[in-house]
Amino acid sequence: MIPCDLMIRSRWCLPIAPDPKPIERGAVAVEGGRILAIGPAADLDARYLPTAAFDLSNHAVLPGLVNAHCHAAMSLLRGAAEDLALDAWLNDAIWPLEGRVVSAAFVRAGTDLAIAEMLRSGITCFADMYFFPEEAAPRVSAAGLRAQIAFPIIDFPNPWSSGATEGFHKGLELNDAYRDDPRIGIAFGPHSAYSVEEANLQKTLMYAEEVGRPIQIHLHETAEEVAAAVARNGHSWVAQLAATGLLNPALQAVHMTQLSDADIELVAEHGVQVVHCPTSNLKLASGICPVGRLAANGVNVALGTDGAASNNALDLFAEARLAALLAKHLGGAAEGRVEDALRMATLNGAAALGLADEIGSLEAGKQADLIAVDLSGPALSPVRDPAAALVHGPAAAAVSHVWVAGRCLYEEGDYKTLDLVGLRRRVELAMEGCG
Amino acid sequence: MIPCDLMIRSRWCLPIAPDPKPIERGAVAVEGGRILAIGPAADLDARYLPTAAFDLSNHAVLPGLVNAHCHAAMSLLRGAAEDLALDAWLNDAIWPLEGRVVSAAFVRAGTDLAIAEMLRSGITCFADMYFFPEEAAPRVSAAGLRAQIAFPIIDFPNPWSSGATEGFHKGLELNDAYRDDPRIGIAFGPHSAYSVEEANLQKTLMYAEEVGRPIQIHLHETAEEVAAAVARNGHSWVAQLAATGLLNPALQAVHMTQLSDADIELVAEHGVQVVHCPTSNLKLASGICPVGRLAANGVNVALGTDGAASNNALDLFAEARLAALLAKHLGGAAEGRVEDALRMATLNGAAALGLADEIGSLEAGKQADLIAVDLSGPALSPVRDPAAALVHGPAAAAVSHVWVAGRCLYEEGDYKTLDLVGLRRRVELAMEGCG
Repeated sequence: MIPCDLMIRSRWCLPIAPDPKPIERGAVAVEGGRILAIGPAADLDARYLPTAAFDLSNHAVLPGLVNAHCHAAMSLLRGAAEDLALDAWLNDAIWPLEGRVVSAAFVRAGTDLAIAEMLRSGITCFADMYFFPEEAAPRVSAAGLRAQIAFPIIDFPNPWSSGATEGFHKGLELNDAYRDDPRIGIAFGPHSAYSVEEANLQKTLMYAEEVGRPIQIHLHETAEEVAAAVARNGHSWVAQLAATGLLNPALQAVHMTQLSDADIELVAEHGVQVVHCPTSNLKLASGICPVGRLAANGVNVALGTDGAASNNALDLFAEARLAALLAKHLGGAAEGRVEDALRMATLNGAAALGLADEIGSLEAGKQADLIAVDLSGPALSPVRDPAAALVHGPAAAAVSHVWVAGRCLYEEGDYKTLDLVGLRRRVELAMEGCG
Repeated sequence: MIPCDLMIRSRWCLPIAPDPKPIERGAVAVEGGRILAIGPAADLDARYLPTAAFDLSNHAVLPGLVNAHCHAAMSLLRGAAEDLALDAWLNDAIWPLEGRVVSAAFVRAGTDLAIAEMLRSGITCFADMYFFPEEAAPRVSAAGLRAQIAFPIIDFPNPWSSGATEGFHKGLELNDAYRDDPRIGIAFGPHSAYSVEEANLQKTLMYAEEVGRPIQIHLHETAEEVAAAVARNGHSWVAQLAATGLLNPALQAVHMTQLSDADIELVAEHGVQVVHCPTSNLKLASGICPVGRLAANGVNVALGTDGAASNNALDLFAEARLAALLAKHLGGAAEGRVEDALRMATLNGAAALGLADEIGSLEAGKQADLIAVDLSGPALSPVRDPAAALVHGPAAAAVSHVWVAGRCLYEEGDYKTLDLVGLRRRVELAMEGCG
């Protein structure tokens, strides 16, 4: 018998890859924070002697979800701007509000609130993009989950920097500080092609390639954005970024609701990562990312919640469900299949962030980032296909356990690394500053 | 001081009508199962002396939700047919499966399971349409909530009847049995215009008018259905039903994803009730009900979950959110406003079922059908606008209390009228019969 740290037995085990088929009465053995083995519980019990074990007889165990785009601290702006389209939402409501209220303390409280919400609903890794990234990163470290922290690059003065130059300066310092962090990756976050001038996009590309970090950008979010690009440049932003060298596999293009066939060909040719944020895109009346057309061209599509000011929840199960429903609406009921939706929420997210070798599926050697979902409640039973229950049922509320690198961060309402009572007070304090 | 049975104080009280504005630190006084008064808690506490009281300091209290279309017992068919369009879903999967497995015991267990799910997520009244309605109605009575039970009328043999004639016979008996029931209304449920011949639709209309009961029908669910009608009759089903007298305020037309301007004019002119089932319509790739165009023409639009075989959840908060998002997608971000979505889920549902004088809003004299939602969790806080939190946040999982006619049916995980352990056994037994 081989000793190991942890054995997690469950009614169903969903590895996602290499074989997406659920393992009935499966188990995952964990050692040193990584997956040692996965398979039928009877097989693993015959080979491994765990120090600790969980027996989750009504549960599905799957990889922790990867939220490939959010603005965590905006959880404090939840409900601040309802029923507005993107242009008015951003220019008349959110940016002026952020100018008044965003501070280091705001980002610490808001990031902790978002982490509490995300852990509770099964997200173990998220891609953040917000002001004061040097305040957000330590919150992720303390909470024990995983994140890509993109520092913002915007040409004009903002709550964190006087403009792009100071943004690069502070961001590269941050990158140095987290160079070898096992759970936090730094990324470059130019806000959008329309708010960052060409010279600064080129600097972004140069620095990002130098330090080997990805770039995340809001791209082709609305029809108006694309029309303005065509009017200014004679072609779309996708075509413009292709011409200037920005399109590559380290570029994470978020939203992408408006894509011509030529745009999709460019995105596919250059191996760009696409992040689909279906709730936010509908709520701001921006459109729908054509996931079926992208996937048919071999493009990797991940899922994001976007920030809580345009969603208003950080629930990636809900995004997976909505992505499946919208894919069916656009392409017919055979599109948006359950397996595709789950893969988008896990392995595709990992791949988008350049982490597919480490997380996103339950495979021996990968990080032990797992979640358990109790499928015995009246809203999820009976279970014929656990994958369908996870995608089309209310799974987020049924998440019972969350592990990252083999460490249990959440169990049945109990947060192991967060103080919810203190957090509620800090949120109240931050809200007093919001007026 | 006036004595009363119950006082429910809450952080926010959302009456929906006549004024949709939330009452901060509000209260509802209940006497004899009806609302005696609603207003600021300080005012009510000065006038009423309750026998019992709830102090819900982090909660929103609002009318119980009205699920205006479902097939409750189909909760046992949850996940039975994934990733299929309506035609294949119905003809190749669901109808043959129902022919094999549906029985009186199946309907009893499935209805109880659906009731458990619906109560837990704040639904206090639902419109059912399924086989063995005489088995479903007693389950509603026992559980203590409210329902419209539509008995099915289908021309061909089905698990409950040999055809339309036996359907009328059994249905009219059922109507006699529940003639004076305070919480259960019987309705006529012709499956669709394409599955019930004209003579039987006319009989439905005649009987329904005689006994003063509404009709609920699936109508204009898919483009194929409408195209077939045009090919057969020279016009749409809506035009056909208008010509034959079926269109009237007692007709509840479910789905309505495909509507020409002429159809909408007919629906508006005749005061037809429309029930929008957004999740089911996307999942079966049927289309989207044009709620904005209907509302602009003065049509009352309610919300339904449809059955768990095409959703897969009976969560009306989720339907309200999706309805709001889709309205924005079709009509711009200023459509699908938070207030509209909440009204669709409550008062519009009551109106669609002919119950607007009794339920759907918190007004003195109406039934005390109320729910409380705890908005203090990390996924819902901070709360700027409780209505936005309810529509755009994950509210269903945060429902803490449910009252119907002043009686508490659910409180913090505790079902007062259902035995969840026994129900789980009965569901397992029913599933063995499903093969």
